[in-house]
Amino acid sequence: MSIRLFNAQILDPVTMKVLQGEVWVDGEKISYVGDGKDLDSSKHTWEEVIDCQGNLLMPGFKNAHTHSGMTFLRSIADDLPLHDWLNQKVFPSEAKLNGEHIYHFTKLAILEYLTSGVTAIFDMYLDPMMVAKACQEMGMRLTMVSGLNNFTSSIEQTAREYETFNQPGSLVQYHLGCHAEYTTSKDILMELKRLAHYYKAPVYSHMCETSFEVSGCQERYGQTPIAFLDSMDMFAYGGGGFHCIYVTDQEIEIMKAHDMSAVTCPGSNTKLASGIAPVKRLLDKGINVAIGTDGPASNNCLDMFREMFLVAGLAKLKDMDAVAIDGDVVLQMATLGGAKAMGLQDSNTISAGQNADMILIDLNQPNMQPIHNLTKNLVYSGSKQNIKMTMIAGKVLYRDGHFPRYDAKHIYEDVNRIVKDLGLH
Amino acid sequence: MSIRLFNAQILDPVTMKVLQGEVWVDGEKISYVGDGKDLDSSKHTWEEVIDCQGNLLMPGFKNAHTHSGMTFLRSIADDLPLHDWLNQKVFPSEAKLNGEHIYHFTKLAILEYLTSGVTAIFDMYLDPMMVAKACQEMGMRLTMVSGLNNFTSSIEQTAREYETFNQPGSLVQYHLGCHAEYTTSKDILMELKRLAHYYKAPVYSHMCETSFEVSGCQERYGQTPIAFLDSMDMFAYGGGGFHCIYVTDQEIEIMKAHDMSAVTCPGSNTKLASGIAPVKRLLDKGINVAIGTDGPASNNCLDMFREMFLVAGLAKLKDMDAVAIDGDVVLQMATLGGAKAMGLQDSNTISAGQNADMILIDLNQPNMQPIHNLTKNLVYSGSKQNIKMTMIAGKVLYRDGHFPRYDAKHIYEDVNRIVKDLGLH
Repeated sequence: MSIRLFNAQILDPVTMKVLQGEVWVDGEKISYVGDGKDLDSSKHTWEEVIDCQGNLLMPGFKNAHTHSGMTFLRSIADDLPLHDWLNQKVFPSEAKLNGEHIYHFTKLAILEYLTSGVTAIFDMYLDPMMVAKACQEMGMRLTMVSGLNNFTSSIEQTAREYETFNQPGSLVQYHLGCHAEYTTSKDILMELKRLAHYYKAPVYSHMCETSFEVSGCQERYGQTPIAFLDSMDMFAYGGGGFHCIYVTDQEIEIMKAHDMSAVTCPGSNTKLASGIAPVKRLLDKGINVAIGTDGPASNNCLDMFREMFLVAGLAKLKDMDAVAIDGDVVLQMATLGGAKAMGLQDSNTISAGQNADMILIDLNQPNMQPIHNLTKNLVYSGSKQNIKMTMIAGKVLYRDGHFPRYDAKHIYEDVNRIVKDLGLH
Repeated sequence: MSIRLFNAQILDPVTMKVLQGEVWVDGEKISYVGDGKDLDSSKHTWEEVIDCQGNLLMPGFKNAHTHSGMTFLRSIADDLPLHDWLNQKVFPSEAKLNGEHIYHFTKLAILEYLTSGVTAIFDMYLDPMMVAKACQEMGMRLTMVSGLNNFTSSIEQTAREYETFNQPGSLVQYHLGCHAEYTTSKDILMELKRLAHYYKAPVYSHMCETSFEVSGCQERYGQTPIAFLDSMDMFAYGGGGFHCIYVTDQEIEIMKAHDMSAVTCPGSNTKLASGIAPVKRLLDKGINVAIGTDGPASNNCLDMFREMFLVAGLAKLKDMDAVAIDGDVVLQMATLGGAKAMGLQDSNTISAGQNADMILIDLNQPNMQPIHNLTKNLVYSGSKQNIKMTMIAGKVLYRDGHFPRYDAKHIYEDVNRIVKDLGLH
C-alpha cells in the first residue's frame, strides 16, 4: 500500500511547529515528509492519493488506559456509588462473559476510538487473546497489559501472553502488570516481580485511584501503594500507574527514579467522583504523564478530546489557577506522553521510518475557526467532529464519518444481541 | 413549509419517556405528534419527508448563557490569569469592534451552535441589533439580554431595544439585564430597576461568578451581589443569574422567592479556574437551573454535550459523591431548564402547537451503542458527532454535517479577514 497525502499542515508534537507539505506512506510506515518539491511524486505508483485540503495532519492520539470490552456496560449503571457500581453492576455482569463476547465488545470500542482519532490503546481486560484478536482483525494498534489479580489470570498465563504477543512487527505488544495492589496478593505480586526481573520488563497497574485504596494498602503493609510495590523492587525496569490521584511526594520521587509514567483518566475520575489527579505536580517533577479514557462503563465514552479538555481544566480548578497547565502540554501528553508510556517509540511523530499512525483534523468546522492557534483550538475547542481521517499502520480505517473496512451496523447488532442474551437489556 | 418526520423515537424531556412515531411540522410549528396510524399522511402535500431511521428526535438544547460575538477571540488568550485575560486581551480587542464585525462573528457562532444541537441562545453582547440581525438572517432563535454597564449601552438604549425586539412571532426576544453589579453603578442599577417595574419584566445579570466579585460587592455595599440587587427590589418580576458559583444560602432563598433561574457555565468556570457552581444545592432548594456555554473566548467552544458532562461530573467531584446529580436531570436542565430561564415556553417539548425547534440524534454511532439507556448515553457519551439534524422554527439548518442554507466557508473567510484586519492574527 502506498499513499500520498498532500496539501497538508503537518504538526510536530515535539516542537509544536507546523510544516506545509506532504507525507508519503509505504506499507505500514511513513517513507517521506516534506514539501515535495525535491521529489517527483508522479514517478510513483500510488494506490491512493489524498488531498488533505489544507487540514491538519498529526500523529494519532494514544489512549493510555482503557478496558475496551466494557462497552457492554455503557449507561447501565450510572449515578451510583462506586461500591454499588462495582459490586452490583460491574462484577456480576462481567462474571457472565466469555471470550467471544469480549471480542465483539472490543470491536465496538475500536469503532469509537477511530472516531476520536485514537491510533493506539493501552488495554487491560479479561481475555487478552480476544482483545488482541479484535485489534488485529480491525487494524488497531494495541499495547495490552496483564490484569493479573487473585481472581482472574495467573502468573503462568501472564508469562505465556508476554511471550506470545511481543513479536516484532506486530500490531500488538504486551506489558506485564496486575490489576491493582488491593486485588492482588503479596505472593502473586512477588511472582510478578520475578517475572519483571526475568524479562527485564516494566510493570503497570492501577495505582492510587481512590483514598480507600491508599488507606487499605497502608493498613495491610504500612505503606502507600507505589511505595509498597517499589519496596518489593517491582519497578527495576520502570513501568507506570493508571490514575495516580492520591500519590505522595515520596511516590512521585519513586516514579521519577524509575522513569515511570502516570496515566491520568479525568473523565472516569470525575464521573466516579474519585478525585482530581495532581497532574501539574507530576509534570513539575518531570514525570511522563499520559492520558486515558478508562473503560466505557465509568466514563462513559472513549473520547480523547473530552479527556484533553478535562486534563487542562481540572488542573486549573484544582489549583484555582487558570495558568496551571498549558494546552500545548496537554496535547503532548495525549500523543508523545502516551507513546512513551506504552512503548510506542515508532508511532511518535510524523517522520520517515515511523509507523503511519496519523489523523487528519478538519479545520473547516466552526469550532476550529478563526485560526489563531491550531493547537489550542484542538485542546480547548476540538471534538470528534473534527476527525476527518484516522490511519493506523498505513491503513485508512475511518474517513468522513465512515468506516471503509467494517460494517459498523453489524457490530452494533452483535453487541446488542449479546447484551440481550446476557439479560442486561 | 410542511415537513413530515417519520420513523422516529421521540423524547419527552418532562417524563423522559420515548414514543415511537412521527412528527408533522407546518410552518414554524409542530402540528402533530403521534404514531401516525389515525391519520393518513398521504393526504398531505409535504414539502419534505424525512425518514428518521429510528433515531432520537428531541427538543433542541437551549444555550442559556453566551456571548456569541466572542468567537473572534477563540484560542487567542488561553492559559492566562483571569485579570490578564480580561485587561490585556479581551477588553483591548473588543474596543476595536464595530457592529459589522459582531454580525460576522455571531454568524460563525451560530454555525457552531447548530452542530451542537442548540436551537436557542441567551446572548449578552455589544450591539444587540447586530446580534439579532445575524440570528434573524440565519434562523437562530435568540433571547437577547441587555449587557448594560458603566461603559457600554445606556438605560435609554436598553428601553429602546426592549420595545424593538419583543414583537410577537419573532425569532428574537429581549430581556432586561446588566453586565454585572461590579461593572454597573448604583445609579444605573436603580434606573434598571425602574425599567423592570415599568415593564413588569425579569432582570438577568452575571452574578457571583468569582469570589473577587462577591468580596468587592460586600466592600461596596455590605451585601453579597444577589442580596444587594434584591435589596433594590430588582427581582420583583423574577430574572436570573449567570454563573452563580459563590451564592450564599440567603441568596438561594432570594432566588427561590422570586422564581429566578441560575445558569451554570461549567466549561468556562473550569477553564478560567473560577470554581464549581453548587448545582446540587440549587436543585435541592428548587431553583430552576439552566446550562450555558459562556462565550468562546473563555470556554473555548460552544458545545452543549461538553457542558452536560461537566455539570454532572463537577457536581459529583464537588461533593465527592458519584450520586450527586442524575444524568437525566442534567438533560432536563439543558432543555426545559433553559427554556424556562429564557422565556421560551413555546419551544419546550415536541407537541402540537409548540415551535418546531428539534434535533435528531444519530444513534448509529459507536458512542451511542449498545442502547441500554438513551438519555444517559446522551449526557455521558454524547458528542456533536451525534447531531444528525438541527431544526429551528420548522427550518432544517444543519443536516449530516452540512449547512444547507449557508456557505460556511464564506463565513469562515469573513471572520479570518476581519481578525487579520484587526491585527489579531
